[in-house]
Amino acid sequence: MPGVLSRSAAWRALAAAAREGGPSVAELLDQDPQRFERYSLALDDLLVDLSRHPLTEPVWRQLLALADERDLAGRIEALFTGEPVNASEGRPALHTALRRPPGEALTVGGEDVAAAVHRELERLEALVEALRAGRWRGYDGRPIRHIVHIGIGGSECGMTLGCEALAAEGGGGPAVHIVSGVDGRELAEAWRRIDPAAAVFVVASKSFTTQETLTNARTAWAWLAEAAGREVPEQFVGVSADEAAMARFGIPEGQRLRIGEWVGGRYSLPSAMGLPVAAAIGTAAFRELLRGMHDMDRHFRTAPWAENLPAVLGLLGVWQISARGVGSHVVLPYHPGLRRLPAYLQQLDMESLGKSVTQDGTPVATPTGAACWGEVGGNAQHSFFQWLHQGTGRALAELIVPLDEAACPAAHRGLTLANALGQAQALAHGHTPAAGEPAAAHRAYPGSRPVTLILFRRLDPYSLGRLIALHEHRVFVQASLWGINPFDQWGVELGKQAAKALIPAARGEGPPPAEADAATRGALAWARRWQG
Amino acid sequence: MPGVLSRSAAWRALAAAAREGGPSVAELLDQDPQRFERYSLALDDLLVDLSRHPLTEPVWRQLLALADERDLAGRIEALFTGEPVNASEGRPALHTALRRPPGEALTVGGEDVAAAVHRELERLEALVEALRAGRWRGYDGRPIRHIVHIGIGGSECGMTLGCEALAAEGGGGPAVHIVSGVDGRELAEAWRRIDPAAAVFVVASKSFTTQETLTNARTAWAWLAEAAGREVPEQFVGVSADEAAMARFGIPEGQRLRIGEWVGGRYSLPSAMGLPVAAAIGTAAFRELLRGMHDMDRHFRTAPWAENLPAVLGLLGVWQISARGVGSHVVLPYHPGLRRLPAYLQQLDMESLGKSVTQDGTPVATPTGAACWGEVGGNAQHSFFQWLHQGTGRALAELIVPLDEAACPAAHRGLTLANALGQAQALAHGHTPAAGEPAAAHRAYPGSRPVTLILFRRLDPYSLGRLIALHEHRVFVQASLWGINPFDQWGVELGKQAAKALIPAARGEGPPPAEADAATRGALAWARRWQG
Repeated sequence: MPGVLSRSAAWRALAAAAREGGPSVAELLDQDPQRFERYSLALDDLLVDLSRHPLTEPVWRQLLALADERDLAGRIEALFTGEPVNASEGRPALHTALRRPPGEALTVGGEDVAAAVHRELERLEALVEALRAGRWRGYDGRPIRHIVHIGIGGSECGMTLGCEALAAEGGGGPAVHIVSGVDGRELAEAWRRIDPAAAVFVVASKSFTTQETLTNARTAWAWLAEAAGREVPEQFVGVSADEAAMARFGIPEGQRLRIGEWVGGRYSLPSAMGLPVAAAIGTAAFRELLRGMHDMDRHFRTAPWAENLPAVLGLLGVWQISARGVGSHVVLPYHPGLRRLPAYLQQLDMESLGKSVTQDGTPVATPTGAACWGEVGGNAQHSFFQWLHQGTGRALAELIVPLDEAACPAAHRGLTLANALGQAQALAHGHTPAAGEPAAAHRAYPGSRPVTLILFRRLDPYSLGRLIALHEHRVFVQASLWGINPFDQWGVELGKQAAKALIPAARGEGPPPAEADAATRGALAWARRWQG
Repeated sequence: MPGVLSRSAAWRALAAAAREGGPSVAELLDQDPQRFERYSLALDDLLVDLSRHPLTEPVWRQLLALADERDLAGRIEALFTGEPVNASEGRPALHTALRRPPGEALTVGGEDVAAAVHRELERLEALVEALRAGRWRGYDGRPIRHIVHIGIGGSECGMTLGCEALAAEGGGGPAVHIVSGVDGRELAEAWRRIDPAAAVFVVASKSFTTQETLTNARTAWAWLAEAAGREVPEQFVGVSADEAAMARFGIPEGQRLRIGEWVGGRYSLPSAMGLPVAAAIGTAAFRELLRGMHDMDRHFRTAPWAENLPAVLGLLGVWQISARGVGSHVVLPYHPGLRRLPAYLQQLDMESLGKSVTQDGTPVATPTGAACWGEVGGNAQHSFFQWLHQGTGRALAELIVPLDEAACPAAHRGLTLANALGQAQALAHGHTPAAGEPAAAHRAYPGSRPVTLILFRRLDPYSLGRLIALHEHRVFVQASLWGINPFDQWGVELGKQAAKALIPAARGEGPPPAEADAATRGALAWARRWQG
């Protein structure tokens, strides 16, 4: 693996150029009528338009050189062939294996991963088809019509996104209720909305030890037993890498779906974790999702850098964050079905890139992952766009616009695209009012806010899969350039341990643990006083 | 008004101290067993605990001095007494007048604002009571059971938050469906879920010209007319500052609710904009929301700086953002009902503070409003907490924890508080693994991540009102210290104009406007090709 980023010649040139500054985006756009053609990339109907970034020919050349200097090609091959790219945990990251077409062999560490993936996918599909055909029945014989998916983090974000984004595909599927939070309120809310005799509970946790998920699952188990007058294991499904833990919980053998240790939670939508999505949209549509991901995988693995969408987006991300000081990557989908895309990408991006040491433990020399957040674009225009246009923060705005409007009433057509493009133009170009205008200083728009514009034909399983894989690989590229590990998440362990030690005191059943500091003790006393 | 922040002696001392650095939060916590008592503030059951910020006695004294040097007291009086604090638009900001108890006079510019507020509140309540009592009937005589609230930005965020957070109060209220987006999909979804003969459509727009809202409202009007076989104005309510515009649209006189020009959209929840919340929770509960806001108003106006919750939070915000380089204010409510609180505060904070010039047009000398975003705390722990713990970004984490768990199953109690406090401790304290530990560099937690911890007894209308007003005033304090105007939003105008000019081209009904740049033209051509 190459050393730290700062030793790369291309990187040093990029950093120096960023310190010197350069033309504004408005100047670049005005000077070059071919700028769109020069700095936009496409894969079929998917457009990634970078012409509103302050890219120049020298910068572009250095970015492509950076990919070579950082051996991006070697990293990509290591990813796809199952090398232990997750070094701190000593294992591969094989989410791309989850969406390979049948028949492409992949052997890793002596295991035929491709065969295992397809075996498990077929088990998933058998469950889904029984469910959708009304053959899966609850304790009193009624067919299952509800799925309560219990999972959090990587076992939640993709399933929520998939179910919401693809709701239009759902003919005949069960209603899906997703439960994450540990306080039991979400579970109670889901319980109110289901018929317990017609619901399946999916317990989704890679480790099958996640506190929130197992607590909710045990409560659901008890409630269902109470409703049925007996325990009802046949209405529980497990998804985990630990089959023995699922068995101990009481999940029946045929309903234990397995995922590999080599699939991270935030990459798990195409695995058996995707069960609620597959159930909601059907197995054929779920295969379309996988096909969209795989087409992006193949593109990423084979396209030259200058045409490679994830590679270029990743190079651009590192340049904007580490050389140009961008602190926020703002995700702005212009479609109500993509309401949870910002939360999904936030988890993918920030859990993967929120690291301060390289794979070998050396501190990084530049900022790594930015804050990644966002909102449906149209709503955001009436919210934080003020800050994007006139604030002092530095942000990269990514506008994502599905083009199809067949489902929109005629009077509404064109408005979404006009808004997205109008905002992109205003962010990039800016505007300087004439000196005499009233409140001129308050009406000045500096422009040069970097904008990535993504357009594609329509939101469907294929395009959603492609979009997700685009970002998975964009994140991988950023990690490869920085030399960090995008597949571990040690940062979440310390808080988990501290929380566990605090449970007795937080329940009012014991003293604070010895390691509780003055602030924790004070807050516990306040809680005791007001908890009622 | 005082000049720019950088001329203040207290500010210069704070900036110098920040450059020098100081002890870690872990050291501060370990050295001082009284740190919780020293740096936490309370108002009844509401605790604001700042002991996990790197505050020291000299910093604390300078922060309090900064309030005086920046004449915060004068700014607060100007706000409450109706001076034109929104200078670029030449008007006052009188959201605090919306929640004053009856009988407290307030005359501004010759108008008895208090009387006007209470008159309109009584009109709102009369509508709500008719609706909740089943006396308001649709076109075929059935009582109204649904509200479709059509609004965006300030006419949406508060209503969504209020309805979700207070769902437990809603006995007997109508179902509320909120529609924002312009593409018509959300409206169609709401339409599918209502009985048109039993629904009221609320058209909420301060200007009554908002493109998204008026487009949706016209479509709803037409759909309802089609369903009823005639136009149905009596099932429409308007909320606006422009009564004539509501009349022109066709809203009947008794159903036009007026808001003052002096209430900004992002401050409008306690105005007639709050209609769907009042309808969902009832008028008594809505008055509790107003009472919570007013109690915070009174506290803000009267408490000395060292005990003044919004003042101290605002001082802290300016110190963290402008002196210590914090780029993100991360909002982490530990309650599923507060799922949309981050979006609400995001709009309030970023639209108010996303400014680069002071009230008199001078460029600001330091960064102003940070990126404000967040997620339900428990979910965020499995998402971007990795970045908070080990990333290179600088963020202020605000953990908000209602304490009451009466609605939680017994096995779940204490877990939320234990998680929040465990994370707070881990963020603040950090942890250095022993040198020999495997992957020690990957398991190192630097700590000193600043945490604000907010605890209160339970989530109800009163406490929600108090929490919102706390943040409104916190934002006002930051704006006052920076010398910027938190009540205008010129930044959103340019994009609106550009969007309007692009509509014909985006609909495929005309050429791009002359001012469209190369990037806009390229994207329009791509859309034409793939729009289908």
